[in-house]
Amino acid sequence: MSLAERWLLPDGVKEVLPPQAQQVETARRRLLDLYDSWGYELVMTPLIEHLNSLLVGVGRDLELSTFKVTDQLTGRMMGIRADITQQVARIDANHLSYQGPVRLCYCSTVLHTLPANPLASRNPLQVGAELFGHSGVASDVEIISLMVETLNAMQVNQELSLDLGHVGIYSGLMGEAALNADQEAEYFELLQRKDLPEIGRFLAESDLDERMKRYLAVLPTLHGGREVLQQARECFAGVEQTIIEALDYLDALAEQISQRYPQLDLYFDLSELRGYNYHTGVVFAAYVPAFGQAVAKGGRYDEVGRDFGRARPATGFSADLKTLVGLAATPSKPARKVVRVPAVEDSAALEVVAKLRAQGERVVQLLDSAVVEDAQQFTHQLVQQDDTWVLKSL
Amino acid sequence: MSLAERWLLPDGVKEVLPPQAQQVETARRRLLDLYDSWGYELVMTPLIEHLNSLLVGVGRDLELSTFKVTDQLTGRMMGIRADITQQVARIDANHLSYQGPVRLCYCSTVLHTLPANPLASRNPLQVGAELFGHSGVASDVEIISLMVETLNAMQVNQELSLDLGHVGIYSGLMGEAALNADQEAEYFELLQRKDLPEIGRFLAESDLDERMKRYLAVLPTLHGGREVLQQARECFAGVEQTIIEALDYLDALAEQISQRYPQLDLYFDLSELRGYNYHTGVVFAAYVPAFGQAVAKGGRYDEVGRDFGRARPATGFSADLKTLVGLAATPSKPARKVVRVPAVEDSAALEVVAKLRAQGERVVQLLDSAVVEDAQQFTHQLVQQDDTWVLKSL
Repeated sequence: MSLAERWLLPDGVKEVLPPQAQQVETARRRLLDLYDSWGYELVMTPLIEHLNSLLVGVGRDLELSTFKVTDQLTGRMMGIRADITQQVARIDANHLSYQGPVRLCYCSTVLHTLPANPLASRNPLQVGAELFGHSGVASDVEIISLMVETLNAMQVNQELSLDLGHVGIYSGLMGEAALNADQEAEYFELLQRKDLPEIGRFLAESDLDERMKRYLAVLPTLHGGREVLQQARECFAGVEQTIIEALDYLDALAEQISQRYPQLDLYFDLSELRGYNYHTGVVFAAYVPAFGQAVAKGGRYDEVGRDFGRARPATGFSADLKTLVGLAATPSKPARKVVRVPAVEDSAALEVVAKLRAQGERVVQLLDSAVVEDAQQFTHQLVQQDDTWVLKSL
Repeated sequence: MSLAERWLLPDGVKEVLPPQAQQVETARRRLLDLYDSWGYELVMTPLIEHLNSLLVGVGRDLELSTFKVTDQLTGRMMGIRADITQQVARIDANHLSYQGPVRLCYCSTVLHTLPANPLASRNPLQVGAELFGHSGVASDVEIISLMVETLNAMQVNQELSLDLGHVGIYSGLMGEAALNADQEAEYFELLQRKDLPEIGRFLAESDLDERMKRYLAVLPTLHGGREVLQQARECFAGVEQTIIEALDYLDALAEQISQRYPQLDLYFDLSELRGYNYHTGVVFAAYVPAFGQAVAKGGRYDEVGRDFGRARPATGFSADLKTLVGLAATPSKPARKVVRVPAVEDSAALEVVAKLRAQGERVVQLLDSAVVEDAQQFTHQLVQQDDTWVLKSL
């Protein structure tokens, strides 16, 4: 192996060097403090778990993203977490015995076998918040608000737009259409690509009734501003009540979000099916013009606790903190002293050094008098005058 | 799989729940701020790397501790980091072009296939600092001081003792003894156990000369206070110069550490060979009576950058932050308000809420008027009086 190869990281795996690492740390603290001020408790979930615990009920996408290893203690399969949401749901279901709402947040690295999208890293630093135990618009409003506040705190809020969808519309239509599994998988795949010609061909070849063909043909076209909700009501007249309820839900949610964040651009996409395997209601994602993928996303997943013995309503969002830091305006450097101290073992000097450090200044003592400290940008030096040590600017 | 099994984490894998997670976060911030004030820059190394980059020159112990997975993009083997030291050395060697000292620190999770000792977790939160580019006592003094300050900051400094060793003594003796590989492996293993009867048998059966038999018999007995260094000089009279230099080095180091930390209990163990594969000089470990294993440890590893094309002197230490938090005195809870806000969409109320949160208070808005917030311990509530919202204590 050549030297250059030893230096290379695997494709899509990113490290964070100085000074960006300090920016990520600063952002981490700002966001965790924000979540704390909203009543969200921090959890640190394990990087590795039994595969069965990690993958229960999460669907095929996450399973494919999860690295698997053998537990050398037991021979059982374990997985490296590819998402944290499921782990947090397990904690709500098992460890926390509250009947009312539980708010939890986290900021930890996850690993993906393959990048989730062409812009994604395989080791994102996932930051997010989850709200358990409340079903209804108010908890989705809170989680979406906290997602918007996250982007505000990171100053990536220029021309922020929020995409909203609701998996109940698709699942309601599928319930009525009663396609077989292969047909449904084909329609699902075409819908995700919004491939209208192929959807037309698929519907023409199907034995669905004319009304259902009309519904399934119009679904991929229902995206745009809030008028889409009204269009959908007209298109889906006479459809199952759950679909109408989903539209009402989106309407109520949009109303409250618009009141709280009038500058926020709302966009509806009724065939948005991201995470359809585990989402059960509204799904949402935030976009900024500078980035071609969602910068944060989430949704409702009321059933996730069921496999852990406690199915509680749940909604949450997450983002890759490294992506957010990359998009954020670079913060101005804090004005602090960087102090050079000569290579002396003098207790009076060391006392001054300890005091300066406790005040948050950076103090570097030379290791010997000949050493050149080219990695530090000193602003001050400590010098001995008469019998005392004094700080002089450079 | 039963429900109870789904809840179980693999043996030795630990998660951190509220409120301990917040204590770990507070400790993380305190330590990273401490390292920053000493001139150490934060790095965030990748959780996964090509196996060859991760394991180059680190020895068999770390190789066995490392989980291996296949890169689905390339088919190459990758490893989940079991240590961070090596990654930081790669960063010093490749990315940072400073000629002088480089100080780096980190705080991230590592994974071990098996627990490093009976008290260790398989997913420690490794915190540490590394100093590159300086060879000599001054940089080891700085690193040991920072390790002691770490334990002071965590308030696990009651009856702290520091074990010091130097792999140059063992390697110097081995150079002179010229045992074959099997013999050296046997002696090494017996020495680690300090198995004096078996060492006696091994030496009696060997064809070493009498002088070398005496040296190798006395080595495992050379542990105790600073008088051990003088004993060693007498026992090893006439031995290779590098061994005398190692004893001088330990003496000079002990002198400076004792001056800085007179209350610190120093203990010498000249057959301490932890990390013998990659350590090249002094090795050290900190102990407290409450914990049967080292709470922090480190040493000099001057050769580690060689395989990355830049062999620089290096010394550093690390600890498991979760262990430190477990041993630390539980911090008193910060006195802050936890405010209950009724379920109203009132812009005046929301403004007060935003202000309180920005001040660091915790504010939870009820999701509906019927919800019971049993997960929160409210101290205050926001109530409407006449036309304004006021804070009332509960």
